[in-house]
Amino acid sequence: MEQNEVVDDIGYGLKIIQKRKGVKFGIDAVLLSHFVTVKKHDAVADLGTGSGIIPLLLYGIHRGNITVTGIEIQPSYADMAQRSVKLNGLEERIRIVKGDLKEASRILGSENFDVVVTNPPYRKACDGKISPDDERAIARHEILCTLEDIIKTANSLLKYGGRFAMVHLPERLPEIMCAVKKYSLEPKRMRLVYPYSQSPPSLMLLECVKGGNPQLNIMPPLVVYREDGSYTDEILRIYGKS
Amino acid sequence: MEQNEVVDDIGYGLKIIQKRKGVKFGIDAVLLSHFVTVKKHDAVADLGTGSGIIPLLLYGIHRGNITVTGIEIQPSYADMAQRSVKLNGLEERIRIVKGDLKEASRILGSENFDVVVTNPPYRKACDGKISPDDERAIARHEILCTLEDIIKTANSLLKYGGRFAMVHLPERLPEIMCAVKKYSLEPKRMRLVYPYSQSPPSLMLLECVKGGNPQLNIMPPLVVYREDGSYTDEILRIYGKS
Repeated sequence: MEQNEVVDDIGYGLKIIQKRKGVKFGIDAVLLSHFVTVKKHDAVADLGTGSGIIPLLLYGIHRGNITVTGIEIQPSYADMAQRSVKLNGLEERIRIVKGDLKEASRILGSENFDVVVTNPPYRKACDGKISPDDERAIARHEILCTLEDIIKTANSLLKYGGRFAMVHLPERLPEIMCAVKKYSLEPKRMRLVYPYSQSPPSLMLLECVKGGNPQLNIMPPLVVYREDGSYTDEILRIYGKS
Repeated sequence: MEQNEVVDDIGYGLKIIQKRKGVKFGIDAVLLSHFVTVKKHDAVADLGTGSGIIPLLLYGIHRGNITVTGIEIQPSYADMAQRSVKLNGLEERIRIVKGDLKEASRILGSENFDVVVTNPPYRKACDGKISPDDERAIARHEILCTLEDIIKTANSLLKYGGRFAMVHLPERLPEIMCAVKKYSLEPKRMRLVYPYSQSPPSLMLLECVKGGNPQLNIMPPLVVYREDGSYTDEILRIYGKS
């Protein structure tokens, strides 16, 4: 472990190494990991895995009956994720690949995965004010890959009938819907995450099926906080499991 | 008034003629009328106006400072809507046009409207089991026009910067998002209507702006019933105003 790093407990008897001052995992990764449909023996790919939080959470939630491949372009994050995998002794189940997700199907093969997940950069790289050397910027802005790159890659990695799940900003919903449909990923299940029961949503969880028939099931609202600022029962259940 | 008709009070001192056994207006029309952004002196078009409920509600809500044109292909509904307009003495403000909305821009002119609204047929005309002579079927299934016909027409009727608002089924959201974007109607505001706070949504309200910049504002959930089955405060306010 390096000096600028910390080890955090993520439940399930698992630990993760994170940068003391870098991007730490948030509720987005936790909610996505609990949202996505993963079945026994599924092969899962995580595009832009960062510290490897999603592979670790999925392994924990599904009690090890899956394999997860995390792909990460930033060497320092990929190395750290690899060390977290070793720290938990999960080298047989979680593979971290250092590389560009745009090359993923060349590296990992086409149509080899049952599930692709991603917690991608949320913001467009629009105005050039963001330094491309900043690791935080790369995690948050579409500097090294666009939304369309990710969706195109998901399509190429997935078997027919496979699932693609993402967490993203509600404000980009229309663009996301058109992009997934363009790459034969049909939106089948969506859930909006509302901080409070009467606030606008802050996050969108979406699951698509490659080659699925059009019919979207929008789930009940997922509310994070009660009026008094404490977590709702559903969030407590999700975190309690963690 | 014909023998198979009834006159109902819709608030604002206005009345509507409806068929005793036909399609009566529902919460969809009421919620859409309250959702859409209409400004003083706006020219509004309602595609598939049926009994004319939306023109009447919009006139009531905006206290007469607008003009509304309702277009309806089914002669018996168009005639009835016209008689409702006369009954309320609103011939100066509400115009009912008997015709096919696919011909609307030829009849009404291109880019003449500030706002286009629609409470369209929700279901696809898929299996041919539905009689095309059935007025209810025409109101509920895409027999005489498709979703794309409606959106294309909305685009041609609207001025640049004008608003298009619709109510539809949440399950068709992905298709709707792609169709509106295809016709330069950018989704700007959306609200999901949930029967109960923990149920899936039953309706989607969407407002687009012709030529708008991409950024969707999803509003807080609109919940219809409390746990005990009584209306929520927001629904009471909406109906109270009616």
